[in-house]
Amino acid sequence: MKRILFLIAASLIIMAGCHQHNSENKSIKVKYVFLFIGDGMGLQQVNATQVYIDSVLKNHQNLSFIDFPVQTFATTYAANQYITCSAAAGTALSTGSKTSIGTLGLNYNHTDSLFSIAKKIKGKGFKVGLLTTVSIDHATPAAFFAHQGSRGSSYDIAKDLIKSKFDFFASGGFLDPFGKKLKDSVESIYSLGNKNSFVFTTNLASIDSLKSKYHSLVYSIPNPAPESSIKYRIDQDSTDITLADLTQKAIQTLNNPKGFFMMVEGGKIDWACHANDAATALNEVIDFSNAVSQAVDFYNAHPNETLIIVTADHETGGFSLGNKDNKYSIKLSLLKNQKISKEQFQILAKNYFSRVPKPSFKEMLNLVKEKTGLDNENLSLGLTDNEIKKLNEAYINSIKPNKDIKIKSTYLSESTEMFSSTCIDILNRKSAIGWTSTSHTGSPVPVYVLGNGGVFFTGRLDNTDIPKIIGRVIGLQ
Amino acid sequence: MKRILFLIAASLIIMAGCHQHNSENKSIKVKYVFLFIGDGMGLQQVNATQVYIDSVLKNHQNLSFIDFPVQTFATTYAANQYITCSAAAGTALSTGSKTSIGTLGLNYNHTDSLFSIAKKIKGKGFKVGLLTTVSIDHATPAAFFAHQGSRGSSYDIAKDLIKSKFDFFASGGFLDPFGKKLKDSVESIYSLGNKNSFVFTTNLASIDSLKSKYHSLVYSIPNPAPESSIKYRIDQDSTDITLADLTQKAIQTLNNPKGFFMMVEGGKIDWACHANDAATALNEVIDFSNAVSQAVDFYNAHPNETLIIVTADHETGGFSLGNKDNKYSIKLSLLKNQKISKEQFQILAKNYFSRVPKPSFKEMLNLVKEKTGLDNENLSLGLTDNEIKKLNEAYINSIKPNKDIKIKSTYLSESTEMFSSTCIDILNRKSAIGWTSTSHTGSPVPVYVLGNGGVFFTGRLDNTDIPKIIGRVIGLQ
Repeated sequence: MKRILFLIAASLIIMAGCHQHNSENKSIKVKYVFLFIGDGMGLQQVNATQVYIDSVLKNHQNLSFIDFPVQTFATTYAANQYITCSAAAGTALSTGSKTSIGTLGLNYNHTDSLFSIAKKIKGKGFKVGLLTTVSIDHATPAAFFAHQGSRGSSYDIAKDLIKSKFDFFASGGFLDPFGKKLKDSVESIYSLGNKNSFVFTTNLASIDSLKSKYHSLVYSIPNPAPESSIKYRIDQDSTDITLADLTQKAIQTLNNPKGFFMMVEGGKIDWACHANDAATALNEVIDFSNAVSQAVDFYNAHPNETLIIVTADHETGGFSLGNKDNKYSIKLSLLKNQKISKEQFQILAKNYFSRVPKPSFKEMLNLVKEKTGLDNENLSLGLTDNEIKKLNEAYINSIKPNKDIKIKSTYLSESTEMFSSTCIDILNRKSAIGWTSTSHTGSPVPVYVLGNGGVFFTGRLDNTDIPKIIGRVIGLQ
Repeated sequence: MKRILFLIAASLIIMAGCHQHNSENKSIKVKYVFLFIGDGMGLQQVNATQVYIDSVLKNHQNLSFIDFPVQTFATTYAANQYITCSAAAGTALSTGSKTSIGTLGLNYNHTDSLFSIAKKIKGKGFKVGLLTTVSIDHATPAAFFAHQGSRGSSYDIAKDLIKSKFDFFASGGFLDPFGKKLKDSVESIYSLGNKNSFVFTTNLASIDSLKSKYHSLVYSIPNPAPESSIKYRIDQDSTDITLADLTQKAIQTLNNPKGFFMMVEGGKIDWACHANDAATALNEVIDFSNAVSQAVDFYNAHPNETLIIVTADHETGGFSLGNKDNKYSIKLSLLKNQKISKEQFQILAKNYFSRVPKPSFKEMLNLVKEKTGLDNENLSLGLTDNEIKKLNEAYINSIKPNKDIKIKSTYLSESTEMFSSTCIDILNRKSAIGWTSTSHTGSPVPVYVLGNGGVFFTGRLDNTDIPKIIGRVIGLQ
């Protein structure tokens, strides 16, 4: 009964809110939809990044979505597990239906296909683009075109990409374009694509000349970082292509009078949070925000016809501003001394430790000082006896001969290269960053909305509501 | 420039949303305002409690505010420190101004008074009530009537309560009503109150007969729990008075044609989170929700004239569903085996350890099994060798002779009675609860709104916006 009363109350507010809006919708229909997904980007990650901008970067512009007029949150659970994964959450965000862990575009027991808002919009004549900082066959983008029981079936996912006939893809590339992981030899994705009016390029500038010649454009960055992804922002230099560059290019490519749907993923916020690497994560949120800025510029030119949604698929890491060591005092300024992602620092440290003779502890401490600021009293980053002890234990572990360390960017955790990992952990602790997990958590995620249709994002939201509302706003239902 | 564009966009949406609503406001004005503050209640605490209800309690009713039509979040920082305290956050929520840590109703350097929405509304002829599960001179309620540089000045805060002439107070009592902490002897709060038409009672039923005879009623529960508070819900039996009982009585007492403002605090959500005691915290959120239910019943009778806001002053503990030990699997059902708060378990364990001869480890394990379910294989709570080792270490620490353990309910942490504390920590880990801190964190807090005026809770919110919006909705500004 109470729930019904709430629903009536909610409906009254929506009706009050939308009375004028609906009449607007009759004359001006939303035809440009941007769905930005910060993978692993919880409310704490967003808030901490804005605090970092305010208190450390200072003259840097605010996060582009921090003042959006609609701000709420959504639950993220999967059909068979409360803490979701990017495949189940991506499917929820793309199709409006819950599914099981690891599943893309199929129902929970894989008996039926689920169709994404991108496919439905494509069917209505809109153009569709998918962009990500990770590989295009990764769970989040794949949820918009694939129908696969396992998110790990990279080759089959890529085949589904070709079938989608979506207009534009930009990413860190493919994980298995030649089907090398399969038993039988198969036709490459490139060959299959070419037969289906797809063109593949690693030259962003070439897209303008290609777009009239081919139905579908697939851009992959040249020289992708480990695991087919765009470099972390913290590791980039000014010549590197960013997610904002791709978003700008996608807008140019997809813009047409009929309209478009664009999903843009900040895929490595999640990776940095799996690694419990706060400096890298905050930089990734800024990078993601810069991509959103491109959409905001487009919104400013087409305010009545544009809808921008910024959300996440789940939270990663159980991130907090504040931890047991620092209690009420936060020290985000210390993070600015970190010059390199934990991923790249692990690779660097591994190279040092593979030398013969092995580097001394002092030499490694100098490297630490250069890359993280740790052991530098002038930066308020002097090491305590206990921290030196921990680092020394990690050092002794790392100089062991023939130590085979596997550095896996996607799910970096404390089990990898110990010395560099310990350094980043110490820097996080000193900066008053808390982490409860190296996995995802069950936290609801923030939802920021700008544009026509924003008033529909009201009441208790679940991630499955988001594509349903998009569908309603653009007139699919 | 972008910020301006957002503000314009936000205003347009608000205007669209409020066109019909404003015309409603002209004829029907909000005159009943409920501000519920869950102390330390972050979004994760709320979400986890709802998941606990859904998956463990099952037929229990949903949280009363989980379907409110407006759901957003607010930042909480203090004037001089990002992670706030209940005094600075309470002052922000009561006055709309930031102040420094520990300050109540004064600006950050204590040169000016800040006046609460309660005082302003009282000045317009509304009745005012303040309710809390902790003492009435505690930071959150005190922020609505006191002007003190230190939240610890309990006697002076209580004197400010008398000066406020607010109509109704209900709580766990006073911390220092006789001014015993002061150097000079002073008149008791009870004596001062009686001279100012206040009456003090510990009999809830007596209030109906008293309310016409005295201007101000101060109810304190009989036999308060440690530190002048209402027992934790997990420690209550069916005869105990609850926050919902107090809220119901407050509504009966304050209801009048002119209107009322009521602040109701769930003060011990914070305490349970300081103690990293999830089972107790989730029960406190349910207790708080039951109090909100009373307001929802009132709203249902007066929907156009009522505004209910449910929020928090800050998050405590860096709580998450999911932790390093359990990764993607959560096991909230295990928490149901905990029959007693960590606070009460510490008191109980301390009593056991004060016996001569000392209890055996086995005897203590039996107590653990009875109170927490731990060591019971049938409940999937068997202990690992490592957990037994940890418990044994804590046991050895706890049986040391003449060990003087101070159990302080307000800020229970790992520094108190080790054995019982270790048990609750193990149960939290096994249940996949993560905690990053035993202090507050910088996380934004959720804001749930029901009723007339809800549409104004839009865009990027700070805690200082909440009393400003209330003021606007009831026509103060």
